[in-house]
Amino acid sequence: KGFGKYGPAKGLPEFRTKLAEFANKNFDGNVNSENVMVTPGARFGVFLAITTLLNSGDEIIVIEPAWPAYRQCAINAGIKVRSVKTTLENKWEPNVDEILSCINNNTKMIVLNYPNNPTGKILPRKLQDQIIEIAKKYELYILSDEIYSNYSNAEWNSILSYDYEKSIVTQSFSKSHSMTGYRIGYLISNQKIIDRLTKLQALCLTNVSEPIQYTAMKSLDDNVKNNGKIVKERLTKLEEICKEMELEFVKPDGSMYIFARTKNSINTSELSEELLNYGVAIAPGIGFGDYNEFFRISACSDIKTLIEGMDILKTSL
Amino acid sequence: KGFGKYGPAKGLPEFRTKLAEFANKNFDGNVNSENVMVTPGARFGVFLAITTLLNSGDEIIVIEPAWPAYRQCAINAGIKVRSVKTTLENKWEPNVDEILSCINNNTKMIVLNYPNNPTGKILPRKLQDQIIEIAKKYELYILSDEIYSNYSNAEWNSILSYDYEKSIVTQSFSKSHSMTGYRIGYLISNQKIIDRLTKLQALCLTNVSEPIQYTAMKSLDDNVKNNGKIVKERLTKLEEICKEMELEFVKPDGSMYIFARTKNSINTSELSEELLNYGVAIAPGIGFGDYNEFFRISACSDIKTLIEGMDILKTSL
Repeated sequence: KGFGKYGPAKGLPEFRTKLAEFANKNFDGNVNSENVMVTPGARFGVFLAITTLLNSGDEIIVIEPAWPAYRQCAINAGIKVRSVKTTLENKWEPNVDEILSCINNNTKMIVLNYPNNPTGKILPRKLQDQIIEIAKKYELYILSDEIYSNYSNAEWNSILSYDYEKSIVTQSFSKSHSMTGYRIGYLISNQKIIDRLTKLQALCLTNVSEPIQYTAMKSLDDNVKNNGKIVKERLTKLEEICKEMELEFVKPDGSMYIFARTKNSINTSELSEELLNYGVAIAPGIGFGDYNEFFRISACSDIKTLIEGMDILKTSL
Repeated sequence: KGFGKYGPAKGLPEFRTKLAEFANKNFDGNVNSENVMVTPGARFGVFLAITTLLNSGDEIIVIEPAWPAYRQCAINAGIKVRSVKTTLENKWEPNVDEILSCINNNTKMIVLNYPNNPTGKILPRKLQDQIIEIAKKYELYILSDEIYSNYSNAEWNSILSYDYEKSIVTQSFSKSHSMTGYRIGYLISNQKIIDRLTKLQALCLTNVSEPIQYTAMKSLDDNVKNNGKIVKERLTKLEEICKEMELEFVKPDGSMYIFARTKNSINTSELSEELLNYGVAIAPGIGFGDYNEFFRISACSDIKTLIEGMDILKTSL
């Protein structure tokens, strides 16, 4: 198929056209192939956006708990992270005034990630609207990591639906198409931003592996709705068990996780290490910010395995 | 095959073990799997090495003409490039005193690239020894880009054969196994350096696409000697034509290129643009440093196509 040649840094044109169509259909976007760039996973998209659009000394707002990569990529580029902490008591909803109080002349970007990893939260429409208004008013980039959009069990609206020129959406085949090890994702933004990010991708990578691009392009035709249904069933079962165990958590609106704590707070880093000895992996809350008493349970295994894992967890608590 | 999961940032252990064996056999190395790291192409290896090991304000020595990525990656990271110019008159051999005169307290790395892109030069053993001695004396990193090692038509010694702890070798399946579009290469260095580079790779990429790693691992068993033979035949034919055309060049010792100029110097950037209209691609010398009068002819097509291309070039000169 001509994989022996260099390809365009933005990605295969045919693939980008299909991704734009997919985004317009599924994310209420209004984009064309020039707004799309193929990346080796959403993580590289996050790296490119933060590294290219911000400068050392700039500030970025991250709503926590959050996937660690946003903070890691910012620190790696000399960018200051301001975190807005959310709490279980407030249903993991950020306070608008708190966001406003973080903003100063150096603030250049806010990161959104809904459905959220690790809490499963989806923002209520009105709250999301308010945050977008703030971003527009202060001309902040919005980096919206939407890789769990195929796992939404409540009303979910892509940031693309706001048609804001300083928004950058990351997407990944890892979650929607269970292609984690393939490392393929994409970015959607306005053409100027995409062109800037493409320059760094060209410098680092030349292009994303083309056989993987073809594989992902083919998988776009697959019906992946069932993946969302399966994960929802597992989450429902997990919620049931968590309630029986009297864990504290907010029922997730989406993604693949339950972020929970026990009634008497424990050191979840030690707990997660102990559980590994029994073949059970949970993610301690410390990785997602200052949430040491929480841990993340993932719905990535089948229900039988999940029940076994939760039984082991129960005896360790 | 379990591609649906994240893999180790350094690369698949089985693949790294095979790469270490391959390096010991073919490059006179003395390494094990902990010295090897899989990257999405040699370019990302160059990016990782320069970005991770050097700091803004450090200096790097690049012997020119050179593949543009070394300079690009350095400038992207705020690193100052000192170029040591070589000339056709001196057979593209760098002057040792000139290298010495570039070195100051900020100098942290020297880039070597033999067999060279674009000149096809391989350094005489004694000159290479002298440069390694300088690097050792001043404790410079040596970034040795050896992706054309399978295309050596003269005695060639990998930097690995010197067993110097501050050397980093980049290799690529793009050239040796004609897998350019797959984007897969690897780095060989001491474990401390590999571990540092792995951290940035984990941050950027999580891991290199695993199906591509498997494909490359399988291709390690292929006999690729014939690729070298084919390119050598093409180069010999190209040399013949270049001589007939009275172009000035040094007979290449390896790689896939002839770097030539006309007797009366011309603007090769304009020439290359003009030739594109006729379907002929040459690379103007400006891309490789300040070599505007030179152009690079590539032996990547079959001999019939090369002859046709050279005929078109002749009428354009």
